Amino acid sequence: MNADTTLQPFFNPTGIAIIGASHEPNKLGYGLARNLIQSGYQGQVHFVNIRGGNLLGKTVYKSVKDVPDPVDLAAILIPPRFVPQALKECGQRGIKAVIIGTGGFRETGAEGAKLEDEVIHIAKEYGIRLLGPNCIGILDTHLPLDITFLPPPGPTPGDVAFLSHSGAICAAVTDWARGQGFGISRLVSLGNQADINETDMLKPVAQDPYTNVLALYLEGIRDGRRFVNTAQDIIQEKPIIAFKVGRFSSGQKAIASHTGALAGEEHAFNAAFFRAGVLRANTSEEMFDWARALAWCPPAKGRNVAVLTNAGGPGVAAADALEMLDLHLAKLHPDTIEKMKQILPPAASLNNPIDLLASASPMQFAESLQIALEDPGVDSAMVIFPAPPMSTAGAVAKAIIPVIQVSNKPVVIAVMGERMIQEAVELFRAAHVPEYRFPERAAAALAALSNRKESLEIVKAKPITFSDVNKQKVEDIITRWNGTDFLPQEMSSAILSAYGIPTLPLTLAKTADEAASIALKLGFPVALKVASDKIPHKSDIGGVLLNLPDAKSVQDGFGTIIQRVREKLPNVEVDGVYVQPMVSSGQEVIVGGIQDPQFDGLVMFGSGGVEVEGIKDVAFALAPITQIEAERMIKNTWAGKKLAGFRNLPSGDKNAVLKTIYRVAQLIADFPQISDIEINPLRVFSPGEGVITIDSRVRIKKSSEAA
Amino acid sequence: MNADTTLQPFFNPTGIAIIGASHEPNKLGYGLARNLIQSGYQGQVHFVNIRGGNLLGKTVYKSVKDVPDPVDLAAILIPPRFVPQALKECGQRGIKAVIIGTGGFRETGAEGAKLEDEVIHIAKEYGIRLLGPNCIGILDTHLPLDITFLPPPGPTPGDVAFLSHSGAICAAVTDWARGQGFGISRLVSLGNQADINETDMLKPVAQDPYTNVLALYLEGIRDGRRFVNTAQDIIQEKPIIAFKVGRFSSGQKAIASHTGALAGEEHAFNAAFFRAGVLRANTSEEMFDWARALAWCPPAKGRNVAVLTNAGGPGVAAADALEMLDLHLAKLHPDTIEKMKQILPPAASLNNPIDLLASASPMQFAESLQIALEDPGVDSAMVIFPAPPMSTAGAVAKAIIPVIQVSNKPVVIAVMGERMIQEAVELFRAAHVPEYRFPERAAAALAALSNRKESLEIVKAKPITFSDVNKQKVEDIITRWNGTDFLPQEMSSAILSAYGIPTLPLTLAKTADEAASIALKLGFPVALKVASDKIPHKSDIGGVLLNLPDAKSVQDGFGTIIQRVREKLPNVEVDGVYVQPMVSSGQEVIVGGIQDPQFDGLVMFGSGGVEVEGIKDVAFALAPITQIEAERMIKNTWAGKKLAGFRNLPSGDKNAVLKTIYRVAQLIADFPQISDIEINPLRVFSPGEGVITIDSRVRIKKSSEAA
Repeated sequence: MNADTTLQPFFNPTGIAIIGASHEPNKLGYGLARNLIQSGYQGQVHFVNIRGGNLLGKTVYKSVKDVPDPVDLAAILIPPRFVPQALKECGQRGIKAVIIGTGGFRETGAEGAKLEDEVIHIAKEYGIRLLGPNCIGILDTHLPLDITFLPPPGPTPGDVAFLSHSGAICAAVTDWARGQGFGISRLVSLGNQADINETDMLKPVAQDPYTNVLALYLEGIRDGRRFVNTAQDIIQEKPIIAFKVGRFSSGQKAIASHTGALAGEEHAFNAAFFRAGVLRANTSEEMFDWARALAWCPPAKGRNVAVLTNAGGPGVAAADALEMLDLHLAKLHPDTIEKMKQILPPAASLNNPIDLLASASPMQFAESLQIALEDPGVDSAMVIFPAPPMSTAGAVAKAIIPVIQVSNKPVVIAVMGERMIQEAVELFRAAHVPEYRFPERAAAALAALSNRKESLEIVKAKPITFSDVNKQKVEDIITRWNGTDFLPQEMSSAILSAYGIPTLPLTLAKTADEAASIALKLGFPVALKVASDKIPHKSDIGGVLLNLPDAKSVQDGFGTIIQRVREKLPNVEVDGVYVQPMVSSGQEVIVGGIQDPQFDGLVMFGSGGVEVEGIKDVAFALAPITQIEAERMIKNTWAGKKLAGFRNLPSGDKNAVLKTIYRVAQLIADFPQISDIEINPLRVFSPGEGVITIDSRVRIKKSSEAA
Repeated sequence: MNADTTLQPFFNPTGIAIIGASHEPNKLGYGLARNLIQSGYQGQVHFVNIRGGNLLGKTVYKSVKDVPDPVDLAAILIPPRFVPQALKECGQRGIKAVIIGTGGFRETGAEGAKLEDEVIHIAKEYGIRLLGPNCIGILDTHLPLDITFLPPPGPTPGDVAFLSHSGAICAAVTDWARGQGFGISRLVSLGNQADINETDMLKPVAQDPYTNVLALYLEGIRDGRRFVNTAQDIIQEKPIIAFKVGRFSSGQKAIASHTGALAGEEHAFNAAFFRAGVLRANTSEEMFDWARALAWCPPAKGRNVAVLTNAGGPGVAAADALEMLDLHLAKLHPDTIEKMKQILPPAASLNNPIDLLASASPMQFAESLQIALEDPGVDSAMVIFPAPPMSTAGAVAKAIIPVIQVSNKPVVIAVMGERMIQEAVELFRAAHVPEYRFPERAAAALAALSNRKESLEIVKAKPITFSDVNKQKVEDIITRWNGTDFLPQEMSSAILSAYGIPTLPLTLAKTADEAASIALKLGFPVALKVASDKIPHKSDIGGVLLNLPDAKSVQDGFGTIIQRVREKLPNVEVDGVYVQPMVSSGQEVIVGGIQDPQFDGLVMFGSGGVEVEGIKDVAFALAPITQIEAERMIKNTWAGKKLAGFRNLPSGDKNAVLKTIYRVAQLIADFPQISDIEINPLRVFSPGEGVITIDSRVRIKKSSEAA
């Protein structure tokens, strides 16, 4: 894992200049100076302020140019209009790493953006790497180093690194972490990302030996594929959790007015996080609930959970929560049950969830947990208990902690209550055993530990591509086509064919008689479709006629279609009508590809056809696609599930569908000039009998988009 | 709201006998005696123990029969085998209300069930109302009264009542509530419900003037319709929140081994809670998050929320969370924006979420909140803030609390952090302003406040029924039919017709020639369907032929169907083949009805047809059904949404669909003998042109089920 060496001064500076260090305690520039001193940073600290003087026993230099060696990092916190000059002086002083905390740049509108552009220009001129502007700064609790103006005390040292697009959340998170009993290793507030972005900082943070897990608060991703590749590298050693906001248009609007980041489509982010092996949290609370578990526990080898409790009710709530997260109650081995019988009263329920009864002693907790963890069918465990009536929660904690610490399976705790469980909570935190107040939150943490296994598999998987594709032919077709938007159907068919995707023969008829004679050759029944690259949704305007049984109906049909188009789209030119054989057997699915503005090619699979289009039974993945992802598309959609057959619906050729998905993914990945591919429907025949494209659309990027 | 007077002694006893009061501090019988004394209960307290002696300065009677007046409530906590005798003595002493805390009854198996039956028998004999067995007891913090053996200290007095099927969760909840800054008014642990169940206790608890909201932890519901009716009464004054566990088979298994409660189907519970106006929480934590908001805030009049924050990032997270909960960011009135401009710096974002910037002063918070709440387009507000860098969270709390208290719109707070916000948290709690650590949890509480409005509407709505139905005719058909299971199709068609539901004409042909001559009369094309009440899924065995164009194909088709049935179901008797006209236009939906074991008749609406059956695009409601519920079915399903038309799919006759839903609901509600009705498909024509039943199935309960 090699990080960019130009970022090294941010985490291991030999000397730091604080530009804007202030004497006035209610100014952020005082806070910045104070935090750096208080943090116990071992390198040189230099204060700079145009007013000069002394601060905290140190000389205040009037310019950064006057600062003596060693100095390789500067933090600027002065009014925005003075920032360009200060940055220039940093460059002149030979400082190549600068944090600009000052706000008032791109986030405030056009004028601020202009100022930010000026700053970027200066940074490039002097070869300066820039964090910010409009950020809280950077912090390392172990070095130690605190170049932030967060209100004291700083965060407790720990093993969770936090990178954030939002500066405001940093103070809240470090304070909240302290109350929740976990610590922060490194914290990076990314601000406007004029230079350094979320992806740049991943490796420098992950390289920290004290960091066990990375938690990201994201409002968007600048350079999608680089993020994915970088994360894939990191998560093989350390888990990454992302909480990505801006899911909806309203949230996206809020972002637009906040940092100007582009909020991408949800499905693209989900596909990218899955490929990257990044675990996506749904709430800020969940991100840190998971972070503790991932920092402190081994990953789960499977999804079978043993639940132990002295309280039946919460055990049921846990079972519900596990099921909703696609975890399963482990089926206990008969030996396990036999061993538990030896130590538990006869009324105890040994049907997982294991109800030890309210009378359970600390030793009964410890011994049954030990027995459960030894069961080869158990991948992880959850222990749920309110303070037991005949003992204390602390006593239970003391008894089970050693059992948890020697096990190579993860154990999470739901210790229920508040004041009566304080000792237990403190014992668990000190022992790095993740504890929660409610079984549902503990279950979610266990799911994260189980999903970690999947993450490790996906980042090792290779996308599937075929060598029998004719890339040159597609290149030629696209080059030959001098329009934009949708290709004529025979060209889109030709492109699919060049990539080995079966398509229904397609013959253009320019007259009604020609249509009839083509149909006679094909054999009846046939379908007619209007031929025009200007009409993407042919059936919407009545441009498709199906099941025509004879020559007469084909001749009439030709006229009908031409007339309908003239009525509804009088200005659209029509090339004629396509004649195709009818295919009536098989299931219908849709396979598609699009270019995403952040993550480039995506491939899509799901239910096609107008009747179900509104159900949005579709799944997305990055292109080209791995087998794990393609199989997951089949598993997670009804279109995929029904390939196994359902009622009187015969089963379909899943392998041929998978091949089509791989090939469409390869095509969209190979040709950034193609903005959309849609095979709708793809007809799927019985297993072994393949698939065929009934209708398809391929759209070429407009030249403005291509830039 | 009139409660059962026989339950009065549980909440307002004149004297209480504790049977099993113990001298030994580590016994639950000591805890029970101690809690009652410590609670400050003002009536008479009598201790009973076979050993006699003195306890806490009081004589211990050897039998409850010796206890002097006044006494009208007893609590029994002695080994199970002695319980029947003690209960008998309570009866002889004239005590009509008894709590049995002792466990070891039905929850432990057959032997325990026998003992419980004996207890029930004695209670009936003496006219005793029974709470338990196997329960924690009952508690009222205001009377005060504590007949539980929960470890001290008891819960803080407050306004949230808690009723629970799980005893173990009671201790955890009261302890946790103390830490979260809210109090309990009444607590009832229901135990095995040998007599008194969740529904019985609702009104006695709701009548408490100190109770503002009822929170229920449920593992099932005994008497579904009575629960719904009782809850409907109560929620017009006080909100009810239910957390129902046992959603999944694994959870259900855990319940089965825990209290023996029957866990009902999820859709039935959702339909019942909706009708009852009960808000369903998804986790235990959520139940109490909502409870505080509902106890302390006015309900929201609409779903438009103003979000105010000094931190952009959490504002976006809030916007996401609101959107997911079907709440909306309010569009601020230009006057509102103008007024805010007067008090906020130019860089502040007045595009809801309203970003007051990190520099926001407590007065800026207070004034902008006031302005937002005055906007008629704002129904509720959320204020999100980490401790502001230039002030304190406590100062913000002090400034905004009076604004919140004088508003008739609900305001929830996300105050982010932990130790730096303690003063603010305490101020909010004291002022009864609901506060949370994260915007997502605050958003969920706001959604509960907004859903409360819907609850108040649904409980006032009347189910829709028609007087033009022929109930007698259906009665006659069911009586005439001496089989069980599926009715022959002409009978099910006749039943639907009797309830005013249009059905396709259906003619039985016994021979191929007869089929052809019927088809000639109907006009081609026609459909043929095997006629047998033993074949519910006709198309699965090839028993349906569609679109037959002429007499010849009808004759051949008759033979084909008969032959297929003989091959696949050689032992099934066939009556012949039905001939029906083909209907090819219109959309397809499914309408059905079933009897639910807990809630009786349910009506169903959704997408029909094998192609989409696996997507489970269906919605359920209690039968008969109100307009609100029927419209909600249309709104919440794709089958319903597409009635408005979609792409080249023409719009459908929504009113005719609604009428069919009402009539099927009326039918299943009128006839408990009917276990299932399924109209699949119902063909929906253009608006104004109605619907028609293409195929239907009606199943009659087996006599064993009917009992």
